[in-house]
Amino acid sequence: MGTRLVVVGGVAGGASAAAKAKRENPELEVVVYEKSGWVSFGACGLPYVLSGEIPSLEALVARTPEAFRKGGVLVYPRHEVVDVDYALRTLTVYSHGEGRTFQERFDHLVLATGARPVIPPVPGVEQEGVYTLRSMEDGAALLEALKGAKRAAILGAGYIGLEVAEAFRKRGLEVTLLEAQDRPLPQWDPEVSALVREELSRHGVEVWTGVRALALRGAGRVEAVETTEGVVPADLVLLAVGVRPNTALAQAMGVALGPTGAIATDERMRTNLEGVYAAGDVAESRHLLLGRPYWLPLGDVANKHGRTAGAVIAGKEARFAGVVGTAVFKVFGLGVATTGLSLERALSEGFRAKKVFIRAEDSAHYWPEHAPLWVELVYEEGTGRLLGGAVVGRGQAVKRIDVLAALLHQKGTVEDLMGLDLAYAPPFSPVWDPLLIAAQQARG
Amino acid sequence: MGTRLVVVGGVAGGASAAAKAKRENPELEVVVYEKSGWVSFGACGLPYVLSGEIPSLEALVARTPEAFRKGGVLVYPRHEVVDVDYALRTLTVYSHGEGRTFQERFDHLVLATGARPVIPPVPGVEQEGVYTLRSMEDGAALLEALKGAKRAAILGAGYIGLEVAEAFRKRGLEVTLLEAQDRPLPQWDPEVSALVREELSRHGVEVWTGVRALALRGAGRVEAVETTEGVVPADLVLLAVGVRPNTALAQAMGVALGPTGAIATDERMRTNLEGVYAAGDVAESRHLLLGRPYWLPLGDVANKHGRTAGAVIAGKEARFAGVVGTAVFKVFGLGVATTGLSLERALSEGFRAKKVFIRAEDSAHYWPEHAPLWVELVYEEGTGRLLGGAVVGRGQAVKRIDVLAALLHQKGTVEDLMGLDLAYAPPFSPVWDPLLIAAQQARG
Repeated sequence: MGTRLVVVGGVAGGASAAAKAKRENPELEVVVYEKSGWVSFGACGLPYVLSGEIPSLEALVARTPEAFRKGGVLVYPRHEVVDVDYALRTLTVYSHGEGRTFQERFDHLVLATGARPVIPPVPGVEQEGVYTLRSMEDGAALLEALKGAKRAAILGAGYIGLEVAEAFRKRGLEVTLLEAQDRPLPQWDPEVSALVREELSRHGVEVWTGVRALALRGAGRVEAVETTEGVVPADLVLLAVGVRPNTALAQAMGVALGPTGAIATDERMRTNLEGVYAAGDVAESRHLLLGRPYWLPLGDVANKHGRTAGAVIAGKEARFAGVVGTAVFKVFGLGVATTGLSLERALSEGFRAKKVFIRAEDSAHYWPEHAPLWVELVYEEGTGRLLGGAVVGRGQAVKRIDVLAALLHQKGTVEDLMGLDLAYAPPFSPVWDPLLIAAQQARG
Repeated sequence: MGTRLVVVGGVAGGASAAAKAKRENPELEVVVYEKSGWVSFGACGLPYVLSGEIPSLEALVARTPEAFRKGGVLVYPRHEVVDVDYALRTLTVYSHGEGRTFQERFDHLVLATGARPVIPPVPGVEQEGVYTLRSMEDGAALLEALKGAKRAAILGAGYIGLEVAEAFRKRGLEVTLLEAQDRPLPQWDPEVSALVREELSRHGVEVWTGVRALALRGAGRVEAVETTEGVVPADLVLLAVGVRPNTALAQAMGVALGPTGAIATDERMRTNLEGVYAAGDVAESRHLLLGRPYWLPLGDVANKHGRTAGAVIAGKEARFAGVVGTAVFKVFGLGVATTGLSLERALSEGFRAKKVFIRAEDSAHYWPEHAPLWVELVYEEGTGRLLGGAVVGRGQAVKRIDVLAALLHQKGTVEDLMGLDLAYAPPFSPVWDPLLIAAQQARG
């Protein structure tokens, strides 16, 4: 009997862990159990399947169970791990396909059970016509629902809510976005939210902010959202008010959670139990600016977690140092990228923070397709230490955020940014890159 | 009589120095003399005027003499500074418009005399139909020449040669590119050149490498280029084999040149003569990796020089720390960005250098418009210190080079790169950013 790695959850963190472990140590027996019907898929692409820009759910799959099998990794979709006996190193698996339960042993265990959408405690959410978007099954159900739908309401104006608002508009629906806080994308500063709001309006999305859903009306099938500001008729409702880590299994077996409520891990993705690792949306990362655990449930982080766990299990040296909180998304023609701390967040964390927010262009003023690019920098007064930033504009131009992310990792300052030798040619940048203009303005 | 700043040359470095000095110290008298008929224009846009993508030369102008005047800066085009008496702090100016010479005094002087194209010592280069592309006048002459031209030969496959090859093709010309070295873009490593060569071929540019021009045939008007490999018929020839700094005036007045042949400056753009500064393509920068003076005649560097000189003259604290040698250009649909040292260069500088070169995608595999993105990393064996890199691909996706530039400034390693929290969403990146994939591969 060889050494056996069992991975619970096969989407991003789990699939990465399994593949990496097997690649680095082919002697390992690697088994993946995935509760849903799909493994190794790009959940971040779901909004674009809804919009029709990506032709099918299948297109999101990175690696099929057959491909895993060829690589020596056994993958079982529709298999739910319902219990783990850590002392005996066994787990109990329920096969949804076969309707039976069986036992399995493990030497190493990776918990990659992901996260689930928050269901707000609003009367009527259990009705037909009310959806979340997380799994491929969610995507399939929404695709089906879109066929007859005319008016959609979306609860929550974070990434998912905004991306799906675009998708629904592209499908011809009337869309109302309902956000409890005072602006869309409330996790970032108001200037960026204002740009997002403008882009939503330009594309016919109605945006209600500072509004709470009181009930979903309907007689078994949703008909409207009753809110503090009035009634929004809707035959389709998407709940996009956040996600929570799926920690039930971890807690039941004695795996410790961290302060964020996700599984606490070290740099090697080890939990408090020897031989047990966590990866992906169920696990914490370390925030390199805040110097404490942070929960950043994003696909790229999940893959890094998984790769690290897989390498460590295979006996290789590997560490995942942490995150600075970089994210990017698109809403219609606008790319929105952020990293580090917003000004609001930095202030609430006790930093003596300031910000600049500038509008520049993403290419030379005479370049035919030049478009506006906005840059926000958040930095510490006095030292000039960079704390965060945002880049908003068209397409890949917003990937400039990665320069700020790199400086955050390196504890760089506004002065460092100002001195950077960035690439210039008319199709790619104004002669002063917008990042440099922002840095100059911050330095004053 | 107030304190007077005279700026010699008003394109990029000179225009920046004048504007910045006046803005920071409105008491200064600021005068700019520019030999050509144009000031403050984006010379990097000239190829796109030739191609017709930018409608006119005028579109390249950032600030007109009138706009400068409103800001309190006096700008004189077609005024050539022919002599400087440093001891007396006077200069002699020849007005091409008025055909007269006059004296002018200065307290501060900025030398921003730029660079000029190298004219190769080939018989027949003095004929009609033979051009360079540097000034707006060059651009106007080429625009005129394009009207009747059918077959162009371009000597030199550096940035300018490649950009103009594209422009000429867009104007319907047959184009042959002649390069003495063994590949187009010979200043970078062969893998990148191979991509450039492929893109040129795909768009019908004939590329001859390892070939030297022996003579330009013709009886007063060029008809063909005679080369070591055969004869290339051409009714239009562009000389694009490099540039040299215009240091004659500086040398005549006793300003010291550096080892590169351009004017030696310190971090404040001061020359060896008190009160005399240099900025733009006539001046050296410091190369932060090589730790010695380096000549990087690019528009963005010129602007930084000028801004620094202007601020220092106005009494502000300002420094230009130096460059890492970042550059980007476009040839047809391919963006090519490089920074730091190529492998060849790093080895010749004595580094124990290695490289990786990978092909990835610029967005998620399922994103409809995903396109290939190539990344090269050059790094030091053992320490993993990053020494340089290249990013080749479509559009703004190649601005990822700036992340490598930032790490070069911060003396980062491949390991640092691998740990970066870069932005991910399907339209902007695969879940593993190509930079991270390259770093993983380099780390092995």
